[in-house]
Amino acid sequence: MFAPPVQRLVTELARLPGIGQRTAQRLAFHLLRATPQEAVALADAIREVKERVGACETCFNLAEGPRCRICEDPRRDLGLICVVEEFADVIPIERTHEFTGRYHVLGGALSPIDGVDPDDLRITELYARVEGAEPPVREVVLATNATTTGEATALHLAGELRERAPEVTVSRLASGLPVGADLEYADEVTLGRALTGRRVL
Amino acid sequence: MFAPPVQRLVTELARLPGIGQRTAQRLAFHLLRATPQEAVALADAIREVKERVGACETCFNLAEGPRCRICEDPRRDLGLICVVEEFADVIPIERTHEFTGRYHVLGGALSPIDGVDPDDLRITELYARVEGAEPPVREVVLATNATTTGEATALHLAGELRERAPEVTVSRLASGLPVGADLEYADEVTLGRALTGRRVL
Repeated sequence: MFAPPVQRLVTELARLPGIGQRTAQRLAFHLLRATPQEAVALADAIREVKERVGACETCFNLAEGPRCRICEDPRRDLGLICVVEEFADVIPIERTHEFTGRYHVLGGALSPIDGVDPDDLRITELYARVEGAEPPVREVVLATNATTTGEATALHLAGELRERAPEVTVSRLASGLPVGADLEYADEVTLGRALTGRRVL
Repeated sequence: MFAPPVQRLVTELARLPGIGQRTAQRLAFHLLRATPQEAVALADAIREVKERVGACETCFNLAEGPRCRICEDPRRDLGLICVVEEFADVIPIERTHEFTGRYHVLGGALSPIDGVDPDDLRITELYARVEGAEPPVREVVLATNATTTGEATALHLAGELRERAPEVTVSRLASGLPVGADLEYADEVTLGRALTGRRVL
């Protein structure tokens, strides 16, 4: 139906997550109607990001050079490491302006069903950062997702870290009601967590 | 928050229709995680489509060379022209396998409010194709959208074509109930059109 270059573009666009055949077609038509400058700007941005952006050699966050901006920032607390699953998780935490330490991006969560073992994640690299660090690491915040695999990963890391570095505090993000939530509509698991985690005022 | 190349990619992706900031970010992260081959395939497909695909010099449909596949096809009826607003409209009509003629892509619909005048569309080019064509054009099917601007464009073209080429039949896509539709849920305008356009069986 389409000329081969158009079909190829539709196919490539449809590989993107959440983009189906029809959306891919709509995007391809938009690019066909766009000025060559606009379309080439997108093509160049894709190429550039793959050429210039890699993983930070310390924390595996996105980095334009060997190390990411956060690891390069001398104001960040070296004694505090926040462990997240994906580099995308760094952004919401940075947005809170509540965290002054550095990150460690695992690259996923443990999931034996999906064949994700500790070896598939940057877990050995985390232990290496925590054990015998100078200045010493005071606390590791486990900020993996509040999902089954995220919780399992946090439990696994907590157990290992307690053995390998007993002097380091290991913490987990609080679980409870989202701010602004109605009790009436809260699911029972979240509400149960909010109750067991209740704070004295 | 992001490294400049990542920010640039997010900005370019967010220019696409229906892609907001958050989706653009999700797509950018996908491309960052993808293999260089996958990402470059998309970048190349965009560049290639802009380099190799242009407008057919006869009908203004998408074309890989000077003329589109439909205009190049000797089996297509030269006496029948279907006028559509956008090249994207050619595809659903081709899918019906009911149309054996050729197309004419206007590049939009007349809309004085949005400043779209006859000069902004390929209307002069349509008249040139119809007037004094050899072999002669028997019929022009106006297949602009069933919207206010599409209807206005069809009315305008019908009036002009009747004057310029009185021997040519000018027709319009039928208006009525979509196949499979329930009378109960039909809007009154569509139902009114279906009534006035009723056919003798």
